Amino acid sequence: MRLTIIGAAGMIGRKLVERVAASGQINDRAVDAMTLVDVVTPDSPAGFKGACDAYAADLTETGTAARLIADRPDVIVHLAAIVSGEAEADMEKGYRVNLDGTRALLDAIAAHDDYCPRVIYASSLAVFGAPFPVKIPDDYHLTPLTSYGTQKAMGEMMLNDYSRRGILDGVGIRFPTICIRPGKPNKAASGFFSGILREPLNGQEAILPVEDDVRHWFASPRAAVGYIEHAATMDTAPLGAQRCMTMPGVTATVADQIEALRAVAGDSAVALIKRVPDPAVASIVAGWPRNFDTARAIAAGFVAETSFQEIIAVYLEDEMGQTAQAGT
Amino acid sequence: MRLTIIGAAGMIGRKLVERVAASGQINDRAVDAMTLVDVVTPDSPAGFKGACDAYAADLTETGTAARLIADRPDVIVHLAAIVSGEAEADMEKGYRVNLDGTRALLDAIAAHDDYCPRVIYASSLAVFGAPFPVKIPDDYHLTPLTSYGTQKAMGEMMLNDYSRRGILDGVGIRFPTICIRPGKPNKAASGFFSGILREPLNGQEAILPVEDDVRHWFASPRAAVGYIEHAATMDTAPLGAQRCMTMPGVTATVADQIEALRAVAGDSAVALIKRVPDPAVASIVAGWPRNFDTARAIAAGFVAETSFQEIIAVYLEDEMGQTAQAGT
Repeated sequence: MRLTIIGAAGMIGRKLVERVAASGQINDRAVDAMTLVDVVTPDSPAGFKGACDAYAADLTETGTAARLIADRPDVIVHLAAIVSGEAEADMEKGYRVNLDGTRALLDAIAAHDDYCPRVIYASSLAVFGAPFPVKIPDDYHLTPLTSYGTQKAMGEMMLNDYSRRGILDGVGIRFPTICIRPGKPNKAASGFFSGILREPLNGQEAILPVEDDVRHWFASPRAAVGYIEHAATMDTAPLGAQRCMTMPGVTATVADQIEALRAVAGDSAVALIKRVPDPAVASIVAGWPRNFDTARAIAAGFVAETSFQEIIAVYLEDEMGQTAQAGT
Repeated sequence: MRLTIIGAAGMIGRKLVERVAASGQINDRAVDAMTLVDVVTPDSPAGFKGACDAYAADLTETGTAARLIADRPDVIVHLAAIVSGEAEADMEKGYRVNLDGTRALLDAIAAHDDYCPRVIYASSLAVFGAPFPVKIPDDYHLTPLTSYGTQKAMGEMMLNDYSRRGILDGVGIRFPTICIRPGKPNKAASGFFSGILREPLNGQEAILPVEDDVRHWFASPRAAVGYIEHAATMDTAPLGAQRCMTMPGVTATVADQIEALRAVAGDSAVALIKRVPDPAVASIVAGWPRNFDTARAIAAGFVAETSFQEIIAVYLEDEMGQTAQAGT
């Protein structure tokens, strides 16, 4: 299999590359060659036995998409995007990168005859907009309330249409909020969901800007990589014309997160969480979905964690080289 | 009010122009100036007392949208589109006209500061895709199964996003199938819905290619113009972030149509309908929606006919200069 990853320098992209490099395969299919692109040159993976081409490229520049498709990769993972906050602040850039970039990729594929690659498209829960039912079902209407969500929903529609036409074989993955994100705190409104666990697990203080009863939908970085791996080789025939699905995950409140932290790392870790209400963050988060019925994705074979303690255990294992027990 | 109509040479566009020209107003607001554009030069209306500028322009050409917006029309009616069959046959043209053309218009508006026009966007039932519930509610998910429907749904999403941002004040109208279309038969798969009434009312034979139990969603050309007039001056605040609505209409089977024809024009008219089954047409029509719950549009003040006899009466009055009684 030839694998191309667009957005390979991001957190999920890097973890995917590391995992494929280590095993040399996705599920039971050998990966012979990887092409890794991002707006900065992605790291070439250590230990990968196949061919690897890693370079900086901007999908919104003329010719980039055609170059990416020239060697006809079997599987294309499209993770590149402007994130929600930036897409809202810079409308032109958001539409250019998130919509036009995606379309450039799809149209470059359409320009090839006798070629129908698997295209894995990173979508988002932001395609949904309040008001929400208690659990959002797979057939819930898409009413995004941000430009980012609008762009992702438009990309989903193109992915469906191009798949229906047989131009490509698309799978759209609506990622849960990824938790615990490794690394340093960032400015995303969702950053605290990881920060209130990651910082205490590392012996540092964390700020909690919202109430304990805020509920959201989560999965680990490891689960996120697993979705992509599954999407790369799954049978897409049962998906029919609707190629995009909300991924399974864990619904949890901030209180659930804190109790999972306590179970794993004790009261001293929990004591590092400082409550500093931030009405701006609370207002943004209030519009986010809380729980999903992901029957389609589950039937299609996608899996995630089933508890928040499990999500924390993944962090300890993957980022701190510990088992959950060793973390207590 | 300055009114700009894009797609003014089409059937609905012409009827809208005639109606505004005759009254000099929309609802109770005076129309001082009209700009009429289409890919062919639209007819200038007889009897309009205001200024009228009519010219040929292609919204997909650079500069056209900016030119259309230069005089800051208060209300912009965007009817221009490649129809379903052509958008399916010529994918590039469909995306270029239906998606890029719409986006060019919206972005030209965005380029103006302190300007937020009412934009009335012609959408379509094709944003919906089977399987359908018995009545499709306003919050039914959009799963288009054609490129045309995909493009219209993407336009709806942009209309919502640009409205949410305060760039424009959008109203998206999902038109029922318009019946009875005046003029000659056309090649649209839906053409027979009008043909089996129009031709017999004019003493000519008509072909019915589907079974009598085929059900669909209809309104008259007069109702279609009425939607646009209402959308031009309605209070959009109650619409919130969801600016697009299925319009009220009449659900009717082919058998209902035929019985309405019989009631208005007698058995001799019905005898002019020849059944010539066409599996290709039947297959296309089988994927179309049949009935809608249009509570949102009704609450917002949109109206249509309430029976098929009424739809036929509109044709007799508007196209044949008759009342329904005179047609029998």
